[in-house]
This record gives sequence, C-alpha cells and structure tokens, in this order.
Amino acid sequence: MSKSMSGRPTQSGSRRSGRQSEPPLIPVLAVVGVGLIGGSFAAALRQVGQVGQVLGVGRDAAALARACELRLIDRSCTLAEAARADVIMLATPVGAMPELLRELLPHLGADTVLTDGGSTKHDVVEAARGALGDEVARFVPGHPVAGSELSGPEAARPDLFLGRQVVLTPLVENPPELVQRVRQAWLACGAHVTEMSAEQHDDWLASVSHLPHLLAYAYIAHLAEAPDASERMRYAGSGFRDFSRIAAASPEMWRDILLANRTLIRRELDQVREQLLRFDRLLETEKAEELEALLAQAAELRRSWRL
Amino acid sequence: MSKSMSGRPTQSGSRRSGRQSEPPLIPVLAVVGVGLIGGSFAAALRQVGQVGQVLGVGRDAAALARACELRLIDRSCTLAEAARADVIMLATPVGAMPELLRELLPHLGADTVLTDGGSTKHDVVEAARGALGDEVARFVPGHPVAGSELSGPEAARPDLFLGRQVVLTPLVENPPELVQRVRQAWLACGAHVTEMSAEQHDDWLASVSHLPHLLAYAYIAHLAEAPDASERMRYAGSGFRDFSRIAAASPEMWRDILLANRTLIRRELDQVREQLLRFDRLLETEKAEELEALLAQAAELRRSWRL
Repeated sequence: MSKSMSGRPTQSGSRRSGRQSEPPLIPVLAVVGVGLIGGSFAAALRQVGQVGQVLGVGRDAAALARACELRLIDRSCTLAEAARADVIMLATPVGAMPELLRELLPHLGADTVLTDGGSTKHDVVEAARGALGDEVARFVPGHPVAGSELSGPEAARPDLFLGRQVVLTPLVENPPELVQRVRQAWLACGAHVTEMSAEQHDDWLASVSHLPHLLAYAYIAHLAEAPDASERMRYAGSGFRDFSRIAAASPEMWRDILLANRTLIRRELDQVREQLLRFDRLLETEKAEELEALLAQAAELRRSWRL
Repeated sequence: MSKSMSGRPTQSGSRRSGRQSEPPLIPVLAVVGVGLIGGSFAAALRQVGQVGQVLGVGRDAAALARACELRLIDRSCTLAEAARADVIMLATPVGAMPELLRELLPHLGADTVLTDGGSTKHDVVEAARGALGDEVARFVPGHPVAGSELSGPEAARPDLFLGRQVVLTPLVENPPELVQRVRQAWLACGAHVTEMSAEQHDDWLASVSHLPHLLAYAYIAHLAEAPDASERMRYAGSGFRDFSRIAAASPEMWRDILLANRTLIRRELDQVREQLLRFDRLLETEKAEELEALLAQAAELRRSWRL
C-alpha cells in the first residue's frame, strides 16, 4: 500500500504516529452505518493515521460491538454526539438518510462537515436540502465506486478504496475548503477523486453499476423459479460465479438504490430489453454472421476496459 | 494439486515417470483445436503422466507453433494422422465439429476413441450420428464446465479442470469401457465426472451458463450504443468487472453455442425478459417491500451456492 500511495500530499511519506505533532486530517470522525463502506472508510483513514477518534452509530448493537472489536470504531455513540464530530460519514442505505439528516441537524457542531457514501446522488442531495435547509452547505455528497457482495463490519477492509474512483457531487452552496477536506480524506484512503454533477453521476452509474445489479438479481430471481434450481446450479462454473456474484449483495441497500434512481435505471432497462429482443431475433432467424458481429463488438469493448 | 488429487484411482499416488512400467491412460492423444479447453486437457494429462504423445491439429499455424513451445502438444499433424490416435479430443467451436468428424471418419484407427469438449451436446450428438454412422459408437460426448474469457493456447492451464464438473452424455451405442476410458481421463485431470442425457445437459446449461453469457453480451452491446461508453466505463467498479467478464469470451465459440442450443436458450430468455418486466413494474409503482423481498430471495439463493 505504501508504494502506490507514495507522493500523495496527505501521506507525509509515512504513517503518522504519536511522535508526530501535526494533527490528523479528521480529529473526530463519526461513521453512521458501520458496514462495508463506513467501516472501510474508518479503517483506511486509521491505517494512514489521518483520523484521531472514530465514533460509530448504528441500529444493530451486535454489529457495533463487532466494529469495536475489529477496531473499526473506538466506541459507539448517539446520533446527537456524532453530530458534533469533525466529519460525519453517512454510510447507510440511501433510503435511511433523510431521517438521519433531520435528526442530526439540531445537534450539529459549529464546524462539522457531513458527507456520505451513497450509490445514488440526486435523491441524497434532494433529501439533504429538505432536511438541512441552509446547513446543506456543510454537506458534501460523495460515492466511492467500490464494494463487495459482502456487507457488515466483517466485510470492511482498509484497502477497499485503493485505486478506486470516488465521485464527489459538490453543491453550489459548498465552500470550496469543505469539498477539499472531503477530497483529502478520500485521497488518504488511496482513492482517485472526480467531481461531477449529481445528475451526471446518477446517469453514468445507472448504466455501469445499477443496471448490472438489476440484471444479476433478475437472472437469479428467474433461476429461483425453477423447481430444480439447486440441482441446476451444481453445473454452474466460474462464468456463473462471477456474473451473478453481485446478486448476493445487500437487498436493503439495493432496494434503496434501484428506487432512488428508478427513472434512469428504467430507461437503461428498456434499452437492454430491446437488446435482448435483438438477440432473440438473431437466434430465431439463425443469423450467424450478424450474431457473431454483435458478440465480437461487445467482446472488443469489454476487452478494452481495465479496472 | 497433489493433495486434492490424492486417493484418486488413476493417480497411482504420484506423477508417472519413465521409470514406471505401466503405460499412460492415453499413449497417443490427438487434440483438434489447441486452445483453452484442448490445451488444458493435454496439459492436465501430461502433468499427471497419463498421456504419452500429444498431437495437435488446428487452422492457425501460429497457434499450433505456440502450443508446441508451451509443450501443450509434441507436434502438429494432419487430421488423417490424428484419426489414428488412441483418443481424439475435439475442442473446436461446436459448429466446426460436423465437418471435422466427416473428415476423420475414413482414417479412424481400429481402437480410436473420440470425445469432445463442446458446451452443447444435443447438436454435437446429432452431428456425430450424421457424420459417423455406425462408428458413432466410439464417440463419447462430453463437456467440461470450466472456462475463461481468455482463449487460445496461451490461456491453457493444467489446473483448469481441477475440482470442476465434467458432464458426459454417453450414447446408447457407446460400449461401457469406452465411456470409462473418457471418464478416467477427466478424473486424471482432477475433475468430477457426471453422466446425464444430452437433453438434460443442454437444458441445465442453458440456464446456468448460456443465458448468463447472453445477458452479459447483451448488456455490453447495450453499453456500446452509448456514444460516451468509454467515459462511462471509467466509473465502473468490481461489480461491473465480474458481471461482464464473460462478455469478453470468444465470439466465434459463443455464436455456435447460442445457435446450437437456441431453442432452450430462447425459452430461458423469454422468462428472464418477463422477470425484467416484473422489476420494471416494481420500480414504476415504487413497491419497496415487494422489491426488497424479490432481491432478498435472489440473494439468498445466490449465497447458498459455492463453486
């Protein structure tokens, strides 16, 4: 990790320790939702010494206790206490964010910065405007494009964001120094940070993340309708394994994402259903050359891509 | 590898060597199509000393030369010479098999056994009956459920079949000792071997292999229609990577598989399109609970599966 992160402005060339006098980027971090994303954010910042204390808020006492054992957080706290942290990371399913923001508002510290890790941004921005009013200026929306089909504190890893894209969708109200602060935190996690509008984010992510998840879930939902689904799956190989891995992701999280970005996702879905009809017709009419050309074009685009 | 293969009847506890007097299972193996599957079959048998000489046949002189350099084959040969080997493995796209079988027939050695590695079985069996006539009794159809998005001799690996399913779909005409011989060869490669009818195979594989490939190809073909596809893909993460990996597989091979098994694949495709419509309606009507239940059911089935 040190090699790929060397030369980054926030790294100071080595891990921080008690001997160093400069304070960490985030003296007190509060993570609301200590799962895969929130836990990994805390772990990554702790690993590079850019966080002082980490507080955790969550619905599930056992998960919070596990997060403490794993040293993802130092201790759990109330939402009111979390509201006075230097930075609050909201890492819950996006559907839970409006209420959390409303509950945080009356307790916010004078200089507290809010950010989030939600996979949709337009709805989160709307919710933040509705819940925070003028205080929305402290809310810097973000989305780390990194994940796993695993969830919960056990799935958290300090290297989850290493070399991955983090998209920030700053608001016109955000003071540049707050955006910079959130950006620095993500850079310290080893991520690449890009800024774009929430609308652009949601459009692009609908096609490269939300639609693949929907297709994988729908494929497995289709398979589940076969009475002998388990028997069939005995003959599944590595193609099935990788293609359908994301259908094991958190149903609660994906319910929220699919609903939050439903307009753009439904547009994508319409188009992919047309594409499936096109394949169906090529099979029906046994158009071998056209079929191969279509497969070859897809294979070429996919081969051109590297994570 | 030795550990997981220990105790297998064909292993004799260790690799064979010149010192041992017992002959290998296959004194002379001819591989027609020295790519991922054919090359890996040869490499796996060679690694456990169960093959004497390996001959290779192929359309592409450079690939054959590379297969020699990689020691997948000992030398290339004509189809007529390959026809006199102890075992012939047909590992070409399934569409090429009818003509290859017709060309092999007049040259077949007295005890030559034929098998194949095609991903569809009903069409291969039909082709074998048509091309070989009575000699079809020597043809033991098979399908190793293992693969990669990579192809060609460079992609071949001796451990490709280790712990993977190989399905044999024996013909009523096959003498049991010939089926046993092909079975032993696959066991020597470290695979699990199951027998079923060609129809059962094609039905099950349509749902757990062919349909996922079609969906991945169609998804990427959809993405390719966006003028800014490359830009969008910059924000794709590990979910996209795994979901779409199989869309980089050989277009020629998959053209043949999709066409060969089109009837069953189109039935699957119809059903998955219905499933997509169901998701679309849940999004349109914002049925959060029903959507989550559907996602949860899919996630549960997928989590129950292990390769």
